[in-house]
Amino acid sequence: MLGGAATHFALSASFFHNVHVVGPVGDDFGEEELAVLAMRGTDVSDVERVSGGKTFFWAGAYGWDLNSRETLATELGVFEQFEPKLSTASRECDVLFLANIQPELQLAVLEQCSAPRFVALDSMNLWIEIAREALVEVIRRVDCVIFNDAELRQLTGKPSLVAAAREVLALGPTVVVAKQGEYGASLLTADGFFALPAYPLETVIDPTGAGDTFAGGFVGHIARNLDSGITDSLLRQAMAYGTALASYNVEEFGTERLQRLTPAEVTDRVQDLARMTHFEHDAYLVGRR
Amino acid sequence: MLGGAATHFALSASFFHNVHVVGPVGDDFGEEELAVLAMRGTDVSDVERVSGGKTFFWAGAYGWDLNSRETLATELGVFEQFEPKLSTASRECDVLFLANIQPELQLAVLEQCSAPRFVALDSMNLWIEIAREALVEVIRRVDCVIFNDAELRQLTGKPSLVAAAREVLALGPTVVVAKQGEYGASLLTADGFFALPAYPLETVIDPTGAGDTFAGGFVGHIARNLDSGITDSLLRQAMAYGTALASYNVEEFGTERLQRLTPAEVTDRVQDLARMTHFEHDAYLVGRR
Repeated sequence: MLGGAATHFALSASFFHNVHVVGPVGDDFGEEELAVLAMRGTDVSDVERVSGGKTFFWAGAYGWDLNSRETLATELGVFEQFEPKLSTASRECDVLFLANIQPELQLAVLEQCSAPRFVALDSMNLWIEIAREALVEVIRRVDCVIFNDAELRQLTGKPSLVAAAREVLALGPTVVVAKQGEYGASLLTADGFFALPAYPLETVIDPTGAGDTFAGGFVGHIARNLDSGITDSLLRQAMAYGTALASYNVEEFGTERLQRLTPAEVTDRVQDLARMTHFEHDAYLVGRR
Repeated sequence: MLGGAATHFALSASFFHNVHVVGPVGDDFGEEELAVLAMRGTDVSDVERVSGGKTFFWAGAYGWDLNSRETLATELGVFEQFEPKLSTASRECDVLFLANIQPELQLAVLEQCSAPRFVALDSMNLWIEIAREALVEVIRRVDCVIFNDAELRQLTGKPSLVAAAREVLALGPTVVVAKQGEYGASLLTADGFFALPAYPLETVIDPTGAGDTFAGGFVGHIARNLDSGITDSLLRQAMAYGTALASYNVEEFGTERLQRLTPAEVTDRVQDLARMTHFEHDAYLVGRR
């Protein structure tokens, strides 16, 4: 089934901004897959087709309530020998998202970009375990990490999310986003905390790619509004857009739902989320009756 | 250590309303414990001291990140032979909270109340396993269930919280509150959804009693404002008060923090929660730049 961080991310981010994708695919990545990746104007000229190679492959099993998942197979395939060479257009990007892959490769891409104004980073438990130093080096050089909350805990050894985020912020980033699956996501900065629940759904068909779809909406919204400055208010809105897009992603398998998603549908769920989290609090004070 | 559903609930609810506690304790429940239970004017005349009996005892072990816990011991003690006989004051209550205990006992208390206008119910996995029919019978007769989300899933066999809540609402209650530990709590009604994160804390010392403290703030706020009608707006505020109170409870062991908590501190965290969940969403629409 078509997936992959780049595909989910690009489909989502392309609602907000033009996207350039950098990465290798194998012979098994056909024209149809490329067409999905290129939907909504995404530039795929930096997608390198490796003859005889196999596209990155991940398989996992989700628990009954979809709140836990076990990795069954991670095959780096063409990523094993990949040496990124970015086109001029990609080098000049203002906003960069380093999707989950070996930290060394993430660094190689980052170093080719001339002057990105906002860099966000994803990773996974595997790299925390086997490439910790390299990962920390990348974290030092980005503005924002977008990790699962369990990964933040694993990375820092802190059971408290607040303490874990504080430790990551001390390394350099100014923004930590903790993805919490069904429970939503939290945004932690030096002096701010914001949390948003996931959009409530009666049925979740496939959570795969939800994190990358979230990142696409989050980073895409920031890219779209970069000239107004990256304020706390913008980051919070970006959380809502990421959450709305991720909620559509999980409604069907792979990228099926995102392929036919409309901007109006995205806006609808952002407004729903605002309603679902609002409460009036001024008129009431604690006090006995 | 002093604990127990009634103690945590009463300490919390007494910020909003006078509380009557019904239940048995053993010889091991001393004058000091009774004094804590009676703080802020709680009426303990329906607390029955059973000579030679042992107070209800629960012990559990929490996982490293405090998100999971395992029950090590549940000893009903004096609850095993308890036959509730409510005083007139308790019978005439407007608002009733049935804390976690055998469903048969919850029903016996409910049946002695003359005309409660709002009844909320807690329970636990044990009763879902061994007293399912009796529990469902109690659920049919209450207005609101306040369960952990895992318990809602276990009770209904539905992996989706939305689907699980729908099934519980179909039994009779008009309000379902899903407690989600570190991730906060969700409120589900026939046509509404509201979610609130837990208050973010750098250090959590002891999560025991957080659920009952939450219930105390939630039910207490409803009791205080009952005459204005149980609106969606009131229920949402009640979620915020429950969340604020629970956040203080976990900062120290047992009831230590709640014993010296002030109304102003509660209000502070409710206002913090409003700020931590607010985002502006009107000015921005999806659209490419």
